[in-house]
Amino acid sequence: VTQAVEALRQRLAQVQDLNAVMMGLEWDHQVIMPPRGAAGRAEALATLQTIAHERFAGDDTGRALDAAAAELGDADPESLEAAIVRVARRDWEKARRVPGDLKADLARAGTIGYEAWTLARADSDWSLFEPHLARMLELKRRYVGCFEADCAYDVLLDDYEEGTTTAEVSRVFAELKAGLLPLIRDVATREPIDPSPLRGEFGLAAQEALARRVVERFGFDATGWRMDTAVHPFAINLNLGDVRITTRYETTDFVTSLFSALHETGHGLYEAGSDPRLERTPLVGGVSLGLHESQSRMWENIVGRSRPFSAWLLPQLREAFPGQLDDVDLDAYWRAVNAVQPSLIRVEADEITYSLHVIMRFELEQDMIEGRLALSDVPEAWNAKVREYLGIEVPSDAEGALQDVHWATGAIGYFPTYALGNVMSAQIWEAARRDLPGVEDGFERGEFAPLREWLTEHVYRFGRTYTPRETLEGAVGGPLDATPYLRYLGDKVASVYGAGQAA
Amino acid sequence: VTQAVEALRQRLAQVQDLNAVMMGLEWDHQVIMPPRGAAGRAEALATLQTIAHERFAGDDTGRALDAAAAELGDADPESLEAAIVRVARRDWEKARRVPGDLKADLARAGTIGYEAWTLARADSDWSLFEPHLARMLELKRRYVGCFEADCAYDVLLDDYEEGTTTAEVSRVFAELKAGLLPLIRDVATREPIDPSPLRGEFGLAAQEALARRVVERFGFDATGWRMDTAVHPFAINLNLGDVRITTRYETTDFVTSLFSALHETGHGLYEAGSDPRLERTPLVGGVSLGLHESQSRMWENIVGRSRPFSAWLLPQLREAFPGQLDDVDLDAYWRAVNAVQPSLIRVEADEITYSLHVIMRFELEQDMIEGRLALSDVPEAWNAKVREYLGIEVPSDAEGALQDVHWATGAIGYFPTYALGNVMSAQIWEAARRDLPGVEDGFERGEFAPLREWLTEHVYRFGRTYTPRETLEGAVGGPLDATPYLRYLGDKVASVYGAGQAA
Repeated sequence: VTQAVEALRQRLAQVQDLNAVMMGLEWDHQVIMPPRGAAGRAEALATLQTIAHERFAGDDTGRALDAAAAELGDADPESLEAAIVRVARRDWEKARRVPGDLKADLARAGTIGYEAWTLARADSDWSLFEPHLARMLELKRRYVGCFEADCAYDVLLDDYEEGTTTAEVSRVFAELKAGLLPLIRDVATREPIDPSPLRGEFGLAAQEALARRVVERFGFDATGWRMDTAVHPFAINLNLGDVRITTRYETTDFVTSLFSALHETGHGLYEAGSDPRLERTPLVGGVSLGLHESQSRMWENIVGRSRPFSAWLLPQLREAFPGQLDDVDLDAYWRAVNAVQPSLIRVEADEITYSLHVIMRFELEQDMIEGRLALSDVPEAWNAKVREYLGIEVPSDAEGALQDVHWATGAIGYFPTYALGNVMSAQIWEAARRDLPGVEDGFERGEFAPLREWLTEHVYRFGRTYTPRETLEGAVGGPLDATPYLRYLGDKVASVYGAGQAA
Repeated sequence: VTQAVEALRQRLAQVQDLNAVMMGLEWDHQVIMPPRGAAGRAEALATLQTIAHERFAGDDTGRALDAAAAELGDADPESLEAAIVRVARRDWEKARRVPGDLKADLARAGTIGYEAWTLARADSDWSLFEPHLARMLELKRRYVGCFEADCAYDVLLDDYEEGTTTAEVSRVFAELKAGLLPLIRDVATREPIDPSPLRGEFGLAAQEALARRVVERFGFDATGWRMDTAVHPFAINLNLGDVRITTRYETTDFVTSLFSALHETGHGLYEAGSDPRLERTPLVGGVSLGLHESQSRMWENIVGRSRPFSAWLLPQLREAFPGQLDDVDLDAYWRAVNAVQPSLIRVEADEITYSLHVIMRFELEQDMIEGRLALSDVPEAWNAKVREYLGIEVPSDAEGALQDVHWATGAIGYFPTYALGNVMSAQIWEAARRDLPGVEDGFERGEFAPLREWLTEHVYRFGRTYTPRETLEGAVGGPLDATPYLRYLGDKVASVYGAGQAA
C-alpha cells in the first residue's frame, strides 16, 4: 500500500546521493585538488548539477509527489512520510523555477570564481576578482528573476534561511547594532586585556593533536569523521557516517585554529545528529544556516570560551605546549580568549564585534545586488564601513573585501545567517540551561554529553522535518529574539572586564 | 555542419564527467573516507553508475551516434571526430548488453566487498571475505551471461584488455613460464645477494620527500598531481590536470615505497600524456591495463632498477637517510634492488618471479568463474600454487589469497594484464632504444625527458584512439611477443648474478 511513497523515496534518495557527491567534490576542491584540476572539475560539477536538477525538478517528480500524497491521504501528518512529501514538494516548487542551465552556469562560475579568489587574495588584487564577481552577480540577478519577489535580496536569503525576510533581518540587526555599539564603546574605556599569555610558537603537530583530543570529547568520532586543513575552514557531510571538518593552523597562534575546530565540530554535530531514519531523504541535515551557525557558535563560544571549559582546557594546553603557558593562570587565559578588540578579519573577530562584520556585509550585498554600488567601488565602501563600525583602517584588500570565500562561490545572502546564528545560539543556550541547571559546571570535568544530548533531542534529530522558524520555536518556546544574546554578551563583558571578573 | 557531432560530443562529455566523478569517489574511498561512510558511499556510487549507464547505453546515444556518423560521411577516418564515433560505438554496443541494475549491483558489491576485504585481511580470516567473493562471482556470471562467448573468462578479460583472448594469454604465459622457471632455477644455484645494504630505519618524512623529488624528475607536477598514501597503492586521474598517485610507507623499508611511487608515476604519466584534445571524450586515458602496466613497469623497473638510474639515485639516498647508506657502494645497492628471491607478496616480488604470481592468479580465476573450485578451497589452492611455482609455504591468508584488493572490488580478469604489461614494457623499451641510442646513459644525470617524450609521442598521446593491439604495434612495429622481456630478464640475471656484474 506504500508503493507510491516508496517510488518517491527512491527518486529522492537518488537526488540526495547526487547532492552528497557534490558535497564530496566541494570538500575535495577545497582540501585536496591540485589547482590545474579546476577547469575539469567545474565541468564535472556542472554536469552533476544539471542531472540533479533534471531528476528532481522535472514533471515526473511532481507526479510522484501527487501519487505519494494521494496514497498517504490524511494519515498522520507528523509521520516521516508526510514530512518527506511536505518538504520535497516545497523544494520541488522552488527548484522548478530555476532552469537547469542557469544552475549549471552558477556552479561553473562558482568553481572558477573560487580559483580566481584564491589568486586575488594571495596578491591582494581586487581587480583579479572583480570580473568573476560581476559574472556571479549577473547570474544571481537572473536567478532572482526566476521568483516573484518585491525584494531581490529576499530571494537570495531564502536559500540559506528559508522563510526569513530582509525586513525581519534588518529589524533584528538594528536591535543588535543598537546593543553592540555602546558595549564596544564601554569596552574601549576599560583597561585593555593583556594578549601576551597567548603569544608564542606552537608546533603544528601538537596543535593538531590537541584539537583532535578536544573535539573527540565534544563528539567527533574518528570512525565516521575526518579533520583536515583548508584555507577557509568549513564542515560538510557526505552521509551520517562521513562528517568532514577542516581548520587551519598557524605556528604563532593556537587559539584561532583550536576555536575554528570547535566551531566546525558544532556544525558537524548538528549534521551527524539527524535521526538515522532521515538518511537519503530530503529531511537529513541542518534546516537552515542560521540554526547551523547557532550550533557552531554554541560549541565555539558559549561552551569553548566559558570559564568552566577554560578550566578544563588549560592543563591540556600546558601539556601540549610544554613550558609555554606555565605562567598563565586560568584568569589570564580566560580573559585573553574573551578579549574584545576591533579587528579586520571576520573569522578571527571576538564575540562582541563579530556581528558588526556581518551587518556591514549584509548592507554591502544589498547594495551590490540592487546595483547601487559599482563593483570597482566595493573595496572603498568596505573600508568605509570598517572605519565607521569598528574604528579601524583596512591596510589591504586581502584583509578587507577579499577576505571571505563566499562571494566567489556565489554564497550571496549567506552572511546574515552568521549573526542570526549568534542570536539563536543564546536563545537555545538559555532553554538548555532551564532544562539542565548547572550544565556548564560539567564542562570543567570535560563532560559535554548532557548538552550534546539535549541539543540532539531538541534540535539536531529533526533535520529539516520542521521549518527553521518551527525548529527554533520548538526548542526555545518563542520566536527569534536578540535579547538573550545581548544579555549573554553584556554579562560576559561585565565579568571579563568588570570588577567581578575573577569570581 | 557539425551539429550532430557536437551533440554527440556533449552527450559523451557528460558521461565522461560522471566517470571522472566515480574515479574521484574511488580515490576518496581508498585514501580519505572514514569507515562508517561506506554504506552511504555504496549507495551514492550505485546511483552514479545507474545514471551513467542510462545516459550512455540508451537508444538516444545510438541515434546520436548514427546522426554523427551520417554527418561525418566518409570524411577523414583518422580525424578526432571519426575516432570518437568509432570508439564510442564500440563502448555503446558493449554497455547496452549489461542492464543498469546489474551494473549498480556490481558497484555496490564492490564497495561493500572492499570494506569486508580490509577487515578480513587485517584478521587474516578468509571466511569474513568468502561470502562477499561469492556474491561478486554470482554477479560476474550474470555479467558474462550478457555476452555471447564460448569462454566466460574471455568476457572478463575483455574489460581490461580489449580484444585479447584467454587462449592468447595462455599461449604467452606458457612461453613466459617456460622461460622463467629455468631462470629461477639458475638464480637458485648462485650466491644469494646480500640484502643488508637496504636494511635500516628510514624516517617517513624523509622517504616521502625523496619519493616526491624523484617522481618530479620523471614528470610529476605538483600543480596538477597529488601523492598520498593508500593500503593498496594505485593511480587515478580525474582529468588531465588532476592526476593522483598513492604509495605506502614502512619505516624499515624505503625500497618498496619508493618503487611503488615510481610505478604509480608511470601510470600517471600515461594518463596525463593524452593529447589535450581528447579531454572529456571517450578517447582520453590509457587504452588497456596491459599497456598501462607496461608504463608503470617501464618507470619502476626498466628505468628505476637500471644501473644508470641507481648511480643517480644513490647519492640522494645517502642524503635523505644520513649515515644509513654510507658503506653501500653502487654495485651493492644495484644488486640488492635487483635481487631475485621467491616471496609471498605479489606487489613486493622481484622482476623474475613477479609474472609467476600473476600466472597463478590467472589460473585460479578461471577455475573460480567456471565453478571448478569451491571458494572455501581457494586458500588451499593458492598455497599449493605458491609451493609449486615459487617453492615456498604461505603462513597466513593475509600473505596469501587475501593479499590483493582486486577480487573484493570485482576486478576479476585484471591480473593477467600485469604480466602482459611486463611483456609489452620490454617490447616498447627495445623500440625506444632503437630510436634513442644510449638513452639510458642520461638516467645517470637524472635526464628522463627524452624517454618520456618518446613514450608520449609513440604511446601516451593517442589515448584510446587505436585498439590496444594497434597501439602496441604502432609503437613497436610488431605483435605481442614475450621474447624481448625474457631477453631483458636473462641479461639482467647475467649482469646482476654473473661474473660481469660490476661492468
